[in-house]
Amino acid sequence: MNIFQKIREYFPCVKERIFLNHAGVSPLCIPVSEAIQGYLKNKVSGEEEDFDVDSARKLFAQLINASSEEVALVPNTSTGLSIAANLLKYPRSSNVVTTDLEFPSVVYPWLRIKMSSNLEIRYVKNIEGRLRLEDFEKAVNDDTVAVVISHVEYGNGFKNDLKAIAEIAHEHGALIVVDACQSAGAMNIDVKRQEIDFLATSCYKWLLGPSGAGFLYVKRDLIEEAEPIFVGWASVKHEIFETVDLWNNTQLILSETARRFEIGTPSLLSYVGATAALELILKCGIEKIENRIMELTNYLIEKLKEDGFTIQTPQESSNRSGIVNFKASKPKEKVEKLHQKGVIVSARMNGIRVSPHFYNTKDDLERFLEYLKEIEDQPSGS
Amino acid sequence: MNIFQKIREYFPCVKERIFLNHAGVSPLCIPVSEAIQGYLKNKVSGEEEDFDVDSARKLFAQLINASSEEVALVPNTSTGLSIAANLLKYPRSSNVVTTDLEFPSVVYPWLRIKMSSNLEIRYVKNIEGRLRLEDFEKAVNDDTVAVVISHVEYGNGFKNDLKAIAEIAHEHGALIVVDACQSAGAMNIDVKRQEIDFLATSCYKWLLGPSGAGFLYVKRDLIEEAEPIFVGWASVKHEIFETVDLWNNTQLILSETARRFEIGTPSLLSYVGATAALELILKCGIEKIENRIMELTNYLIEKLKEDGFTIQTPQESSNRSGIVNFKASKPKEKVEKLHQKGVIVSARMNGIRVSPHFYNTKDDLERFLEYLKEIEDQPSGS
Repeated sequence: MNIFQKIREYFPCVKERIFLNHAGVSPLCIPVSEAIQGYLKNKVSGEEEDFDVDSARKLFAQLINASSEEVALVPNTSTGLSIAANLLKYPRSSNVVTTDLEFPSVVYPWLRIKMSSNLEIRYVKNIEGRLRLEDFEKAVNDDTVAVVISHVEYGNGFKNDLKAIAEIAHEHGALIVVDACQSAGAMNIDVKRQEIDFLATSCYKWLLGPSGAGFLYVKRDLIEEAEPIFVGWASVKHEIFETVDLWNNTQLILSETARRFEIGTPSLLSYVGATAALELILKCGIEKIENRIMELTNYLIEKLKEDGFTIQTPQESSNRSGIVNFKASKPKEKVEKLHQKGVIVSARMNGIRVSPHFYNTKDDLERFLEYLKEIEDQPSGS
Repeated sequence: MNIFQKIREYFPCVKERIFLNHAGVSPLCIPVSEAIQGYLKNKVSGEEEDFDVDSARKLFAQLINASSEEVALVPNTSTGLSIAANLLKYPRSSNVVTTDLEFPSVVYPWLRIKMSSNLEIRYVKNIEGRLRLEDFEKAVNDDTVAVVISHVEYGNGFKNDLKAIAEIAHEHGALIVVDACQSAGAMNIDVKRQEIDFLATSCYKWLLGPSGAGFLYVKRDLIEEAEPIFVGWASVKHEIFETVDLWNNTQLILSETARRFEIGTPSLLSYVGATAALELILKCGIEKIENRIMELTNYLIEKLKEDGFTIQTPQESSNRSGIVNFKASKPKEKVEKLHQKGVIVSARMNGIRVSPHFYNTKDDLERFLEYLKEIEDQPSGS
């Protein structure tokens, strides 16, 4: 029995359904649930708060090759992106470069800034689902403040070459802000090697944790000059806060680490779960997980093509991820029909999005394909 | 058996310790823990996200006599206060009025604004633990943008007369921003009657919920003109977001309700717990809870005085709350000694802060007083 077979036993959901929607919201596994139940037990007994969220911070830092001082706890990706957006300065005639494949809320923080400034938002357009480096080169100029991009695009699973895009940005003095919620936990991330400046993610997708726990990575060099808009007790130097009692202090002395971007008490329930999930992922090893996911999605793509479906996910191996999207007529209806059969996938981009994780099996995919045939009168796009 | 005796059975912590620290972090009760366990069970089975956070929103709105459209979900009080602080405009020579009894992070968002503007922060000084209305009248002028204040002060439990302070603010065109984390769940709040403009709270104190769930009330008239700095998918009109698929939309159309102040996915684990806790509080009735807490704290104050302790909490009944603070030498050492005996209280303001909730009993208080005598060589301040 290999490690993935062992870990599959942590996911009782496989007995009840064929869950292939990790790009949506993942099921919880037994170790995550048990960790949360243990925390609940302590809290019911009246034990004072004892869970140390720094354990989650350290594990996430390890996963992306950062220092834990570069990691802030944020409730979700959107909050992380809003923090990053509002740390940057937007001089007259500046622009931000993003793409037309982003999940809307990746761009919203900058649309908000545009409402009260003359910031220009430039969209690199996809060509048949691909975002080309040459188009980033054309879009980025010396007035670009940041390139804002998902590591893996939510709809078709196109994986961007972050290192190449970061180099384009940095050549023009721009920064790169990454939404990693469709890659963290599934694809290898190395913020040092990929030269990433900001990276935000939630835990409830590929990281297999609950909602309410997320992370914002901020490159060390950027932290001290970055003054957060939202602040609370969590933002200030711990040693200062702890000595404050009867208070008459008019100083705001921010933490020297990424903790300055935190505000108040996070969901400890969620971070207890996230910690257990990160432990599981680190135990398996992210390279192994990525390879396994590629093996499954390669298999799925081949089978779908054999059955005559049109794959909307670009198939170059360097741009592939855990997401496979194929064209379908009436995708929402079909997804609903599959749901009734216990198969969980999503409707996206006029197609069906399938997103297996490392504990899924080829057998799961075959059963999905069988159900798909049952509900399809004829494959669309063929 | 009255309702409080019945509800005491939901709190197994009473068997293991004397928990009198609801102004810190409350224990969880069985209905809250069971609700979270039920949610975990669904998530482990791979059931798709089905908990509707609007149930929490509605119950909180009911508790404070607001409409649920006036309530935004925020992870904690500090985030709620930061949102409120950054919605307001601070013209040249404007000021914000607060007090020297606030928990530091109540003031931090405005200290942050002061760093990049010439905002003046005026502190109403307490006189023997009391904040006097006449001092607010002196501090507030036509340049005041907001009065920022806790309903109940965290250190000594002084309860401010919100309605009177709101009237002073409104006479000068200023708004009132309230931190309710030491009153919500313990003291009656009526945002309409008290004329409150903004009110933020977490759930992990008197509301008896877990960390990671909080609320921000924004008075209806203020919502549409208030443009949040941080935005995400949760901020926009639902119906617009749901029709977005392959995305090429450059519009940011904010929700018309307080949902515009939300950013991304909240901790569903935390809101499941908060919902169960709010149901419990509403079932008992906040007036009954407040009366019960007053009965307990009155009793405690009398007993402490009999034993020669100096009460630091102002004793006028209209300014009383669930917090009682009495002077003590080496309070941290004493709190630690009490902790070893299973008595949970806090050290604050060179004294010991005791904060019983409605399920505590006079017997709990008597046992606390006994342990206190055991560790006291002689009462300080006598």
